[in-house]
Amino acid sequence: MYSFTNDYSESAHPQILKALINSNLIQHTGYSLDSHTDHAKELICEEIHCPDADIHLIVGGTQTNLITISTALRPYQAVISAVTGHINVHETGAIEATGHKVLAMPTTDGKLTPDLIQQALDFHTDEHMVQPKMVYISNSTEVGTQYSKAELEKLHHICRRNHLYLFMDGARMGAALTSPVNDLTLPDIAELTDVFYIGGTKNGALFGEALVIVNEELKPDFRYMIKQRGAMLAKGWLLGIQFEELFQNNLFYTMASHANEMASRLKKALTDKGYSFAYDSCTNQLFPILPDEMIERLKKDFSFNMDRRIDASHSCIRLVTSWATTKEGIEAFIRAL
Amino acid sequence: MYSFTNDYSESAHPQILKALINSNLIQHTGYSLDSHTDHAKELICEEIHCPDADIHLIVGGTQTNLITISTALRPYQAVISAVTGHINVHETGAIEATGHKVLAMPTTDGKLTPDLIQQALDFHTDEHMVQPKMVYISNSTEVGTQYSKAELEKLHHICRRNHLYLFMDGARMGAALTSPVNDLTLPDIAELTDVFYIGGTKNGALFGEALVIVNEELKPDFRYMIKQRGAMLAKGWLLGIQFEELFQNNLFYTMASHANEMASRLKKALTDKGYSFAYDSCTNQLFPILPDEMIERLKKDFSFNMDRRIDASHSCIRLVTSWATTKEGIEAFIRAL
Amino acid sequence: MYSFTNDYSESAHPQILKALINSNLIQHTGYSLDSHTDHAKELICEEIHCPDADIHLIVGGTQTNLITISTALRPYQAVISAVTGHINVHETGAIEATGHKVLAMPTTDGKLTPDLIQQALDFHTDEHMVQPKMVYISNSTEVGTQYSKAELEKLHHICRRNHLYLFMDGARMGAALTSPVNDLTLPDIAELTDVFYIGGTKNGALFGEALVIVNEELKPDFRYMIKQRGAMLAKGWLLGIQFEELFQNNLFYTMASHANEMASRLKKALTDKGYSFAYDSCTNQLFPILPDEMIERLKKDFSFNMDRRIDASHSCIRLVTSWATTKEGIEAFIRAL
Amino acid sequence: MYSFTNDYSESAHPQILKALINSNLIQHTGYSLDSHTDHAKELICEEIHCPDADIHLIVGGTQTNLITISTALRPYQAVISAVTGHINVHETGAIEATGHKVLAMPTTDGKLTPDLIQQALDFHTDEHMVQPKMVYISNSTEVGTQYSKAELEKLHHICRRNHLYLFMDGARMGAALTSPVNDLTLPDIAELTDVFYIGGTKNGALFGEALVIVNEELKPDFRYMIKQRGAMLAKGWLLGIQFEELFQNNLFYTMASHANEMASRLKKALTDKGYSFAYDSCTNQLFPILPDEMIERLKKDFSFNMDRRIDASHSCIRLVTSWATTKEGIEAFIRAL
Repeated sequence: MYSFTNDYSESAHPQILKALINSNLIQHTGYSLDSHTDHAKELICEEIHCPDADIHLIVGGTQTNLITISTALRPYQAVISAVTGHINVHETGAIEATGHKVLAMPTTDGKLTPDLIQQALDFHTDEHMVQPKMVYISNSTEVGTQYSKAELEKLHHICRRNHLYLFMDGARMGAALTSPVNDLTLPDIAELTDVFYIGGTKNGALFGEALVIVNEELKPDFRYMIKQRGAMLAKGWLLGIQFEELFQNNLFYTMASHANEMASRLKKALTDKGYSFAYDSCTNQLFPILPDEMIERLKKDFSFNMDRRIDASHSCIRLVTSWATTKEGIEAFIRAL
Repeated sequence: MYSFTNDYSESAHPQILKALINSNLIQHTGYSLDSHTDHAKELICEEIHCPDADIHLIVGGTQTNLITISTALRPYQAVISAVTGHINVHETGAIEATGHKVLAMPTTDGKLTPDLIQQALDFHTDEHMVQPKMVYISNSTEVGTQYSKAELEKLHHICRRNHLYLFMDGARMGAALTSPVNDLTLPDIAELTDVFYIGGTKNGALFGEALVIVNEELKPDFRYMIKQRGAMLAKGWLLGIQFEELFQNNLFYTMASHANEMASRLKKALTDKGYSFAYDSCTNQLFPILPDEMIERLKKDFSFNMDRRIDASHSCIRLVTSWATTKEGIEAFIRAL
Repeated sequence: MYSFTNDYSESAHPQILKALINSNLIQHTGYSLDSHTDHAKELICEEIHCPDADIHLIVGGTQTNLITISTALRPYQAVISAVTGHINVHETGAIEATGHKVLAMPTTDGKLTPDLIQQALDFHTDEHMVQPKMVYISNSTEVGTQYSKAELEKLHHICRRNHLYLFMDGARMGAALTSPVNDLTLPDIAELTDVFYIGGTKNGALFGEALVIVNEELKPDFRYMIKQRGAMLAKGWLLGIQFEELFQNNLFYTMASHANEMASRLKKALTDKGYSFAYDSCTNQLFPILPDEMIERLKKDFSFNMDRRIDASHSCIRLVTSWATTKEGIEAFIRAL
Repeated sequence: MYSFTNDYSESAHPQILKALINSNLIQHTGYSLDSHTDHAKELICEEIHCPDADIHLIVGGTQTNLITISTALRPYQAVISAVTGHINVHETGAIEATGHKVLAMPTTDGKLTPDLIQQALDFHTDEHMVQPKMVYISNSTEVGTQYSKAELEKLHHICRRNHLYLFMDGARMGAALTSPVNDLTLPDIAELTDVFYIGGTKNGALFGEALVIVNEELKPDFRYMIKQRGAMLAKGWLLGIQFEELFQNNLFYTMASHANEMASRLKKALTDKGYSFAYDSCTNQLFPILPDEMIERLKKDFSFNMDRRIDASHSCIRLVTSWATTKEGIEAFIRAL
């Protein structure tokens, strides 16, 4: 049984594990006040060309989303998201649990547009309604798509004009940045958003997301929020060491490229065989539409998630590759098709 | 300038005011523990044929909604509502502020159906998503429509089968129950829902909603919730006295009937002149579609809310009548058409 | 049975009721956007010598407290209060329900001091603890005591130095300002606090508290908070009309003076008979220590609250007078002693 | 510089790290649905003699506290804690951020007693106050003390009688159970509490707390709460593997015994030299009172936290030992005294 269920089925890249082993018995200061964390932050600041950014290393994505959003919003303010956004469907109401409405806009490709944002703004006109104040996007999105630089610039502009914070969930940032159709860089993202994060969990770390706060308004007292939400890791250096490794020697990009390369092989094989896709993805998540009988057959040797039924005899499945996906796994799947 | 903006533009029916005046200098026990409140509760229990119901008199509708919903739900649970539901659009995120997601289902007529509820249930399958636990409906709805007994029975059944609480917002219960097409009674509603309320604010009281809790599970410690949300009126007898008047001598029904009768005159006149309506309402809210130039003209002598633009030269407006709407006001409007 | 249980046992001063009657059938704009409310705000602005204050009329005290505090604080911030503060003991955790810790400091007289505030500041040093950001005081306090101008100036200074908001709960502001030992005025309070309110419920209105926001930082979007917490009264003019009456012809002060005068007669009689008091109050709440047998006897003809047991044969009771307390009631009680 | 600052200054016991290395490239099911987690739960169920307990492995202590408490309490309910309790002072208001008041009772030794609980119950009498529903204790406590079996039985009884949940924070459970004065076992604790946890972070794991839910009422849908609060680790097997190691071959107890043994050497040396302690601890946290000049001298070679000033020339410091504390470190400190 080989798994294409997600990109966090294996623990960590051996190089990351090795770094953790090397520092194992050294005494560190707790709560992310250690020197590894400091160094990791420096590396990220360099990488994004933004020496003044505040960087916080946090264990998981839902934590990072809920802390960031509840820091940015006053109690009556809301965050705009695609209907498919992770915060809208896959976090058990974590944002609402901090008191805030998610304004979910329907999309066909998981991406917000200036038009959708404008719709949300036009509808919310007075104090009987929530006040939109933040825009949440994911890159790559939950359906494998990604933002171009031109698209992100347009989102940046409408957000600036309307005093909205732009927040990019980068749980799969590596996949987006190393996709063949990508034209965005981390420095671009640091310039065009107010806050974003760089995902480790889904790109070869044991765990960890590096939250980058660019906008000064969102910086004060952020560690209070991390602690209050139970997200301040006692042994914070574990996060620091992992992000040091990710941003030394290009490991972050190398792993993400591998995941994308493995996905592109799957995509080519599926396309060659005439199958279509529910979403046009060039990243490590694919959503092919397959005959149900084939899906049943594939399930014997491979694990993956069902996305949804398409018609009486076809369904969409989700295939995810990762830094650890093997060529053998890919080839076996292609043979099984 | 005559107002059709809403059904709470005047203070209170003179009979209610008179009762308040009569008791003005009498000393009462505070916090709704007085004899008028007890009596009002008895009258309502008789009216709904439900001697064991718990009844709480609360100043306003948003308060009543947020207290009821946050009492019923555990932190990860959600409430299903029509997209147009008051809790979804006109309460500034009050439900989310108590930590709960509103699962908003699109409708054409403001009414939930078993199909829509089933869709919400089917989509929310595991602990990565919120858990639907309550269904919120309004009767009459925000667009003037209302539930038939058969429709409410179907909602009752799907809720029972799926362990969902059924909550009816009755801010405009009077208008629904006295509508010419209505076949529901308060005893029916007490039998078919878990909790509902009977609106006073929009039907001739100074303020006040009578929340009726039928389901035992929702009864314990409810006064703690009222107090915590700031909704326990110090001089609670003011609410008791008003609901005594509403449920003595049929005042509640008389006033609502008048509002509906006034609306039906407007509806007939508009229909006679060939205008259509965005929603098919037989209650005190009408949504006629009118030429923009006529709307501008009407605005000189009448106040009302714009609903939305329909096409380049037509818009939908909202006309609301009340217990206090005068025949002269109606006739003046009809002449102005 | 005559009641000294509290100062909100009767409905409203007849003059206030008369004003409500006079406007009863006039159509008003809802949600406190009417002309009576505008006028009431003007009267209060004049009274406090502060033309730029934002004023909001809100039905009850717990609502006002929870809205104000949750507006002022970011999620990790806390409010300092006396242990006896209303928000700490008598609001069913309403402040915590908005997410904020109440830092309760023990006092002997219900009053906070610069020393107590400094203690709270000294203890809370880093992001593992909440951050004190607001100081909550009541005037008069829950035990009948009151702040002098010198005391309030000292609180003002320590708050300024430490970037703390100073919030005065004035549910019994009238009693404080008309006490024989008072040297504070409303303009003083507007100058020395960031936000405060003037209580109507406990001083002759049917209900209503006038919240005065002096500090610019607390003003933006306040109506969103009022609406979200369910505190925006549909028929807001009911509040406006009441505060117009309170601040025309000195009615606010006349009623409070009467309450204090009635209390002072009780106090003199109790003192003359040799009884002592648990707190040194010159306002409308008295806390005499009486023999248990006398308390039992008094209970036959008078209602009042027990405060606490003092020793094996004595208890402290609470006697409250109001704008409506009659001389006959006072004399009967004195005779019964 | 040798650190006695806390018991989580080193990463993990080598045996734990080795287990993580061994499984590194194996594909696992995410979100704690893997076989290592299942096995760890079995081991713990055996260890506590409680086959029906629900066990959840969670990254950190504050997370575990806030999820457990907010699961157990309805919105108006409160948790009783010692003033020194971790939830009261060192979690940045995490419990209040979930909407609940912490009722903090003063103690001299960090331990709650039936008397203190009764005081809290007696004070909170009606719906104007929060309703106590849970008792939170730590074992060992924040000041190094611990509960005897007799003490825990008494707490159990008062909780049962008053329908209070008893929750034991066991972040330092190992230290308590291996203390020379301990007479409690994990099966005792499973019998006498409703829910408790066994700390890994402070006893040799990289991170992780094993929450044990004994009371059926607290079990339903707990994974929803974990997910909503951002505490569901994607690679949950990392927790499973660690707790497998902790509860195989007695590693959990061996490590805790070592920490206590190291502390007892420090304690003996300090006692021999005539120093006293602020708290009577037989676990791995010591609170000696030392002359300020000696503290300054010690700071040159050792790191530790200041507890508080005792008098003009003495302060209390906190010394913490761990599974990783070396005899050399201890001896160096003793020499430096």
